[in-house]
Amino acid sequence: MFNKILIANRGEIAVRIIRACKEMGISTVAIFSEADRHALHVTLADESYCIGPAQTGKSYLNMVAIITVAIACNAQAIHPGYGLLSENSKFASLCEKCNIVFIGPGSDIISKMGDKDNARRIMQNASIPVIPGGDIIENPKDAINIANDIGYPLLIKARAGGGGKGIRIVYNENEFESAYLTASSEAKSAFGDGACYIEKYLSPVKHVEMQILCDNYGKVVCLGERECSLQRKHQKLIEESPSTAIGAELRKKMMKVAVKVAKATNYTGVGTVEFLLDKYGNFYFMEMNTRLQVEHPVTEMVTGIDIVKWQIRIAAGMPLDVEQENIEIKGHCIECRINAENPLINFRPSSGKISLLHIPGGPWVRFDTAIYQDYFVPPFYDSMLGKLIVYGRTREEAIRKMMVALSELVIEGIEHNSLLHMNIISSQIFKEGSYSTDPIHIENILNEMENKNGATIC
Amino acid sequence: MFNKILIANRGEIAVRIIRACKEMGISTVAIFSEADRHALHVTLADESYCIGPAQTGKSYLNMVAIITVAIACNAQAIHPGYGLLSENSKFASLCEKCNIVFIGPGSDIISKMGDKDNARRIMQNASIPVIPGGDIIENPKDAINIANDIGYPLLIKARAGGGGKGIRIVYNENEFESAYLTASSEAKSAFGDGACYIEKYLSPVKHVEMQILCDNYGKVVCLGERECSLQRKHQKLIEESPSTAIGAELRKKMMKVAVKVAKATNYTGVGTVEFLLDKYGNFYFMEMNTRLQVEHPVTEMVTGIDIVKWQIRIAAGMPLDVEQENIEIKGHCIECRINAENPLINFRPSSGKISLLHIPGGPWVRFDTAIYQDYFVPPFYDSMLGKLIVYGRTREEAIRKMMVALSELVIEGIEHNSLLHMNIISSQIFKEGSYSTDPIHIENILNEMENKNGATIC
Repeated sequence: MFNKILIANRGEIAVRIIRACKEMGISTVAIFSEADRHALHVTLADESYCIGPAQTGKSYLNMVAIITVAIACNAQAIHPGYGLLSENSKFASLCEKCNIVFIGPGSDIISKMGDKDNARRIMQNASIPVIPGGDIIENPKDAINIANDIGYPLLIKARAGGGGKGIRIVYNENEFESAYLTASSEAKSAFGDGACYIEKYLSPVKHVEMQILCDNYGKVVCLGERECSLQRKHQKLIEESPSTAIGAELRKKMMKVAVKVAKATNYTGVGTVEFLLDKYGNFYFMEMNTRLQVEHPVTEMVTGIDIVKWQIRIAAGMPLDVEQENIEIKGHCIECRINAENPLINFRPSSGKISLLHIPGGPWVRFDTAIYQDYFVPPFYDSMLGKLIVYGRTREEAIRKMMVALSELVIEGIEHNSLLHMNIISSQIFKEGSYSTDPIHIENILNEMENKNGATIC
Repeated sequence: MFNKILIANRGEIAVRIIRACKEMGISTVAIFSEADRHALHVTLADESYCIGPAQTGKSYLNMVAIITVAIACNAQAIHPGYGLLSENSKFASLCEKCNIVFIGPGSDIISKMGDKDNARRIMQNASIPVIPGGDIIENPKDAINIANDIGYPLLIKARAGGGGKGIRIVYNENEFESAYLTASSEAKSAFGDGACYIEKYLSPVKHVEMQILCDNYGKVVCLGERECSLQRKHQKLIEESPSTAIGAELRKKMMKVAVKVAKATNYTGVGTVEFLLDKYGNFYFMEMNTRLQVEHPVTEMVTGIDIVKWQIRIAAGMPLDVEQENIEIKGHCIECRINAENPLINFRPSSGKISLLHIPGGPWVRFDTAIYQDYFVPPFYDSMLGKLIVYGRTREEAIRKMMVALSELVIEGIEHNSLLHMNIISSQIFKEGSYSTDPIHIENILNEMENKNGATIC
């Protein structure tokens, strides 16, 4: 096992990883930007080093600075968390060259799966159903013919996409060229790669993803699904497991396909296979995330398996000691992402000092966060303040628990979205579980909230 | 189901009960003393009423005031929590007379089991092994003969005892009379009843208790054991489940006896049967607690059953829908009671404003508390600030998790005992699980801490 790990991230995920390391007896090294001197991950780690100014490009994405710190303090491995450098194959390869274990799959796998168009083709070759679509668009004019073949509505997606960036829905031919240009330029500036491809826009569908764990010796287990259909601008808002749309038979089938995806790519470590599921039970491979997901706690709660600890163990070369047949999905878990934003003012991000904080507690309530009372939420990073996670024996119990936990949560000094969550969780469509990825669900709830002038409904 | 419940308690247990009620859709009524105006349970409840000054005798033990509030606000039931009025048969009977459901067994059962001497006799009649001992002492002079028959060391125990009050260990005849007089006068002032009896002092033994749930229709299930051997002055400090001293066969046997105890007393509701267990696997009925225990979360974590919700359901007349054969004890849970006291200055209680609070979190870490940053801990009540509860797949994992959680816990502004807990949890005797109720274990650790001048050892 490693003696020391550097955590190349910030916020709640850095805290989550530090805690796992401490429980495993591994020393931890935090890195931080000048804006994060008072961040919780800096306090909790055994060692902490400032690696640059607030801008992520000069700090949390500064590969050379990060690797320099890792070498200087004898860290044997780097955990990239999610976002930032977690799916950057160049960074993974740099780690490999410096004899530092990158906690994730090899740089070749990251690169293969990170190119969404390439990943699509690998899946097609392995007879895994993919969303109807085409190859990389070389020229928007020629692409219109491909688009007409696939049919509208369709999605333009960046090859290097992620986090909802570089995606556009196109409803007809007239919109195509301008949508392509904006998606491409957004992708170019976010990922340094403007290449895009076209995919059929399926709707209504559910976003269902499968969590997998793969050791270095060919063993693959699937920990079941998470449903993450409720999204805003392709950013997930609420996740749950199990999905209301999946029965035992379909789950078995989708889990089998997820394992097949992992095997087709010689995957190692923790990964997520994302599918779109239509109302007839047809599902299509969308993409694979070669990293820990924000929403991993949902799976931890229903399986009892600590995903972060297994990720570290696998990276250290330990074989998986869990058998597929012993994985039991029990009860129901829901996660709400609490973001510093005002949903009623077009989700305007908020930053500032948290003047009062009360975190809900009690049995089967978990709040993964890095905020504390008097903490100043800087304006430079992701708006997520924490993840409120509840577990119940049934979905109904989990819903009630989430409502109580949300109503108990107090974060004063900055704006946040817990009222939106309360409105969603208590809505008919959520209770029924019949929601899809269609943005209309959240729009309807926002409209209702506006009509009530933002008054709480519970 | 009830529409409204009054919670006749304060602190973390009032908060725990309020949360359970909210999840069940039940309105909550808090009562509070003048010293508790800013207490968390007052804020969280739907309605709150001040019922008297700080002294418990005039507020939280003021039966007439409490019942008056319950009637005035149409509460259908009263949850007494633990301590205070929870085992007061007069209060339970007063509730019955006023047509308010007392959430607990009937006043007759409380009265029967609260008289420890009587409970002992009931058990003897039901062929349940009890600790060798005698009847109520009428006269300390005559009792010396009984004591000599039983043999030293022995315990003098108040008939109405509880919470460690009215108990004395006597090592020889010379100590007997003065020990009797102090135990009796302590019991007289604490419970209004100075009657005492003698019991053989068994040592080394483990304190192992069985959690039971009994509905109003004769169904009894046992949720397994908690080991609570680590105590100071008969106050539990650390609890865990399962006990390291119990194998599958002994567990089955003890669970059977616990169910027999419940049936012998026609018990209803949530209860705990306490046993002493010697190293040969012999166990003896000690007493039955006819209420929710402080340490109930330990059982919740290993069984997945919400004990407070079931307690309320049973009181509302719902039948138990859990079957004994479906109760699975999985993983390992440890609870540390975080008290406002300085273990190195003879556990001197501490009160004051909490100037900084950081509560540990992450997967399978629970902190049941009613404190918050800037809260003023009043000097009038129990010193418990919260219960730190961790769950692991194995005992070893739970121990590591507890160490990390304790090291992360920050409570500034008042003194507390988390350093003592770290020293206990990391000690050889705790790791081995070979500790007993003998106070020597905690004394040894305190001596070590003193020698290190209170420096942290982790």
